[in-house]
Amino acid sequence: VAVHYFELLGTIVFAITGVLAVTRRGLDVFGAVVLGIVTALGGGTVRDLLLNIPVFWIDDRGILWAAILGSLAAFWIAQAFRNANRLLVYLDALGAALFAVLGANKVLLLGVAAPIAVMMGVLTGIGGGLIRDVLAGRPTLLMSRDVYATPILAGCIVFVSLRSQDMAFVVAGLIAGAMIFSVRALAIYFHLEMPAWLTHRGTSNDMDDS
Amino acid sequence: VAVHYFELLGTIVFAITGVLAVTRRGLDVFGAVVLGIVTALGGGTVRDLLLNIPVFWIDDRGILWAAILGSLAAFWIAQAFRNANRLLVYLDALGAALFAVLGANKVLLLGVAAPIAVMMGVLTGIGGGLIRDVLAGRPTLLMSRDVYATPILAGCIVFVSLRSQDMAFVVAGLIAGAMIFSVRALAIYFHLEMPAWLTHRGTSNDMDDS
Amino acid sequence: VAVHYFELLGTIVFAITGVLAVTRRGLDVFGAVVLGIVTALGGGTVRDLLLNIPVFWIDDRGILWAAILGSLAAFWIAQAFRNANRLLVYLDALGAALFAVLGANKVLLLGVAAPIAVMMGVLTGIGGGLIRDVLAGRPTLLMSRDVYATPILAGCIVFVSLRSQDMAFVVAGLIAGAMIFSVRALAIYFHLEMPAWLTHRGTSNDMDDS
Repeated sequence: VAVHYFELLGTIVFAITGVLAVTRRGLDVFGAVVLGIVTALGGGTVRDLLLNIPVFWIDDRGILWAAILGSLAAFWIAQAFRNANRLLVYLDALGAALFAVLGANKVLLLGVAAPIAVMMGVLTGIGGGLIRDVLAGRPTLLMSRDVYATPILAGCIVFVSLRSQDMAFVVAGLIAGAMIFSVRALAIYFHLEMPAWLTHRGTSNDMDDS
Repeated sequence: VAVHYFELLGTIVFAITGVLAVTRRGLDVFGAVVLGIVTALGGGTVRDLLLNIPVFWIDDRGILWAAILGSLAAFWIAQAFRNANRLLVYLDALGAALFAVLGANKVLLLGVAAPIAVMMGVLTGIGGGLIRDVLAGRPTLLMSRDVYATPILAGCIVFVSLRSQDMAFVVAGLIAGAMIFSVRALAIYFHLEMPAWLTHRGTSNDMDDS
Repeated sequence: VAVHYFELLGTIVFAITGVLAVTRRGLDVFGAVVLGIVTALGGGTVRDLLLNIPVFWIDDRGILWAAILGSLAAFWIAQAFRNANRLLVYLDALGAALFAVLGANKVLLLGVAAPIAVMMGVLTGIGGGLIRDVLAGRPTLLMSRDVYATPILAGCIVFVSLRSQDMAFVVAGLIAGAMIFSVRALAIYFHLEMPAWLTHRGTSNDMDDS
């Protein structure tokens, strides 16, 4: 039950950040709401399709309305948020932490293997943003050096490990979620990038590969 | 049965407009046919995946061949259509009206809730074009101020409302379809854009968001 | 059983080429591994979703680890491969030949119609690269004049035809696979492009279509 409220919270947060991320470009209310819904529901939707289970928002109208209303709200308050970009990225880190833990947990309850659960947690946390960026024609986070996905991956590994040793969901989820949020928040605050040895620098001839 | 012919008609129309939209750029016949098929079948495919029902063209070969042959035809006549851009957008409006109504109707017959049916109708109407634009590297319609998706959304709401009051499919479909087509046609004719209060103008700093 | 080893081989090859294709641009190890996994598993995943069968790597951990380890290896050896671009495209042709034949074969065993099997073979061969290019913000192969997908299509038609006349899998697969690989290799070696009558040249006004 508590899980459901966290899911609603994450959905609203992601819908808002999804819309605010794209309203810098000119787009109308329909496009904004579609992109907000996609950000909020996209990752979990792909997860459910891959696992061949019913898509989570089809029979749970609350989630869909949370995404729609969150997106509409964000569209109209976007002007006010223009100068609150900082707040926005922290909210996004919160949404990613919530979704990653909830996603991994849902999959573990299906009895799948641990590596699949980790992968699905990461997908739930970052998938919506990826699809939004593709539809909006923005470079996806995969192509950036931001410390974004790596703490989510680490948090999902920690969460699945703790759960496999029968730690209670609330405790394991709080530990992993706090870890994801705090590492991401530190990375934002100190403008951290991935270390060079974990990164390939782009070269000028990156267009002539086949 | 009549539904099936309308579905074939919509498929051919969308395959043609899908190919013609991208042949401005250099691409070969294989790429053109793939993009035509994606335009014609993409929206309904995503709808069926989300609802966990069999994808409609897997067991209905007629639809798949209509998409392939429509795309091939469009590829070879594209030269002649270069100066018929106007006709093309009206055809596209016709295809969107057909698909949106048929998509919403199919989903209503499954017994899902009204908001989901509206959403699936819109998805059937615009999904194929979205995937085509992503694969072709074009900006998607979500990022434009064209009055494109909003009449489709309005038409689907009208259609689902009328059907929920037991109006016959043919009557409700004609009303909603004509509404979608006529609003879109008027928008094309008068070069309408979404009103400013429903739009965020792009700003120059749209690249530095996270 | 031999099929499984070929599948593992194709997975590793595609994971490596997938990572090497994008490391020209700056990206971190997480992004590289995600794009490698997507390249290796993406086509078969979409195929399985469309056919409503369990996604092949969910219950077969070997495949997933092959994709992860191949991607990690490619990330660290990428520097050494900078000057082996030639080798890379031949490896990619090998992976596409393997995947197309294996994909078409898997679908034929389900008893679907021949045209669907051909289509799914092509999808298995090129789908992963398409999704990778979309996520990486690169132009997809659909928009190029490279002789890439056409030999895969031809090979799948040959394979499905031979199999429909009860030729053994190994023989039909070797013929079709060798055909795909050799035509693609010749195209690379002689810098072949699709003939002009099968191609539309891009025009300067390709942005003003609707």
